[in-house]
Amino acid sequence: MPVGTVGSVKAMSPLELNEIQAQIILGNTYHLYLRPGHEIIQKAGGLHKFVNWNKPMLTDSGGFQVMSLSALRKITKEGVKFQSHIDGSYHMFTPERVIEIEQAIGADIIMSFDECPPYPTTREYVEKSLKLTLNWAERGKRAFTNAENQALFGIVQGGVYEDLREKCALELIDMDFPGYSIGGLAVGENKEDMHRITAFLNPILPTHKPRYLMGVGTPADLLNNIANGVDMFDCVMPTRNARKGSIFTRNGKMIIKAARFKEDFGPIDPECTCYTCRNFSRAYVRHLINMKEILGMRLTTIHSLHFYQELMQMARLAIQEDRYQSFMTEMLKVLDNII
Amino acid sequence: MPVGTVGSVKAMSPLELNEIQAQIILGNTYHLYLRPGHEIIQKAGGLHKFVNWNKPMLTDSGGFQVMSLSALRKITKEGVKFQSHIDGSYHMFTPERVIEIEQAIGADIIMSFDECPPYPTTREYVEKSLKLTLNWAERGKRAFTNAENQALFGIVQGGVYEDLREKCALELIDMDFPGYSIGGLAVGENKEDMHRITAFLNPILPTHKPRYLMGVGTPADLLNNIANGVDMFDCVMPTRNARKGSIFTRNGKMIIKAARFKEDFGPIDPECTCYTCRNFSRAYVRHLINMKEILGMRLTTIHSLHFYQELMQMARLAIQEDRYQSFMTEMLKVLDNII
Repeated sequence: MPVGTVGSVKAMSPLELNEIQAQIILGNTYHLYLRPGHEIIQKAGGLHKFVNWNKPMLTDSGGFQVMSLSALRKITKEGVKFQSHIDGSYHMFTPERVIEIEQAIGADIIMSFDECPPYPTTREYVEKSLKLTLNWAERGKRAFTNAENQALFGIVQGGVYEDLREKCALELIDMDFPGYSIGGLAVGENKEDMHRITAFLNPILPTHKPRYLMGVGTPADLLNNIANGVDMFDCVMPTRNARKGSIFTRNGKMIIKAARFKEDFGPIDPECTCYTCRNFSRAYVRHLINMKEILGMRLTTIHSLHFYQELMQMARLAIQEDRYQSFMTEMLKVLDNII
Repeated sequence: MPVGTVGSVKAMSPLELNEIQAQIILGNTYHLYLRPGHEIIQKAGGLHKFVNWNKPMLTDSGGFQVMSLSALRKITKEGVKFQSHIDGSYHMFTPERVIEIEQAIGADIIMSFDECPPYPTTREYVEKSLKLTLNWAERGKRAFTNAENQALFGIVQGGVYEDLREKCALELIDMDFPGYSIGGLAVGENKEDMHRITAFLNPILPTHKPRYLMGVGTPADLLNNIANGVDMFDCVMPTRNARKGSIFTRNGKMIIKAARFKEDFGPIDPECTCYTCRNFSRAYVRHLINMKEILGMRLTTIHSLHFYQELMQMARLAIQEDRYQSFMTEMLKVLDNII
């Protein structure tokens, strides 16, 4: 899922998101609540109408941003009091309030409010935090009144501790959510821990419901975690890196500012069918990125998001044709190359 | 002409420029010479290919940028030695060198190298400067070897002095250029002086050749100068202002950040047919501009350039239907409004 933090996948138009065949985009509840405010989005007729996107949308719970962005936060059983990272104003997120906000925003898939432990932290903290997350999931589910139009997912927390992850998953499964998110990863732990946790959760989570790994990741991360049963991902990496000139391709990462592309008049990827590769050269994109031109950021973003979508299309096909393992092995050989 | 300073009309793609029916875009010789360098553009097959634009293009002479941007300049009969505003490196522009650069860049319409006097300045300076401009126009014309593919315009200088303007225009007409530019206006003089000079030049310049007023202007400036016989304009105003949230419309200027648009879910201009007005609300565009989102700058730029193109289409029609004066009078009543 391309990430549209404050209601726009950075540098992209809805038209271009359709062209790269994005099926679903994400909005951040924390950001949308602060600006423009969920009441305005509701008055506009919901987030789809406000941003002019008529395919599925998902909002996260704000738990991660409250942990990583807000200036000051006080966590109680009731919820989290925090200061806006924009203007220092005080706000309170409770599980009920977050559901109310997400209902007003109106995405198709929404998240329970969770406590997202920072990393590294103590097992003791994660244990205590987990109790909050489970209690908040239950309270959020009770407050939720729009099940005909929105699917509310529960978020599995538990840090890098398998027994805590299992406990959390089982209790959430008992609450019977239509989908399960895996939160609290990609927060600083190493890749082995991340893969160990998704592999561990794979046989526990129900196979007939979607699993969403929050905030992940590189193309290689996606492939590795698909092997561990994950269905959905979101990450700002393709868009954020693209704006800085680091482009994902099927042959590895391309640092377009490199001097070797100065007189390279071929496309970023000759086999790619995106607008950028059909129309512009490496030399031109390099020039635009060096000049900090908006079009440069647009063209690299289009390419990288197109590549992510295509990678997922290839993965789905490989799964259908029962050759995922060999597909992944082949792809992993080149994805981390620098070209 | 939308301005594509370093080879990109800021925030726009070639696709979008086609959609707003841009017929010709401009590139700045000074900027393109410094980055990416005219040799690279030539190796790419010329500016059209490099930036993927298959309609007409125009390059200016660099005279204005050498005056306004370069860190240090020394003007001699031979040409101008100047320091790059980017890295302080030393460069020399002579009339021959500028023609060589513009031939390498390969725009359809190119400009003679001129000395653009700053404003305010003395009559003495303008007189001396004019001699250089006329001499350089002649030298540039002699150096020019690509008349089958490119049209070289002469630039009328002479500040706010009618006799100097006349002298310059007559000498350039003697040299028989396929078109004439009016330079050295919109450099700080008042509007009355600008209109006085274009009105003065109107009966002097040949009617069967295009006249291009460089670096102008607001919608009202365009209309007033069309009345004085001008055919072509370029200005960064619609794009630069748009990126800051100041939008031109047929009802006046809209400052989209204004709080009154916070819950305004109508389009910027209900009668406008641009991508922005067909798909997005004032409230959304306002939110994007406040958040400094690239899409916000894209949407305001699309609208403002579309409006400029449409204004020129309306002006052409009014001229054809012999009702230009009344069309202009009506339009001028609202164009400077703030809405």
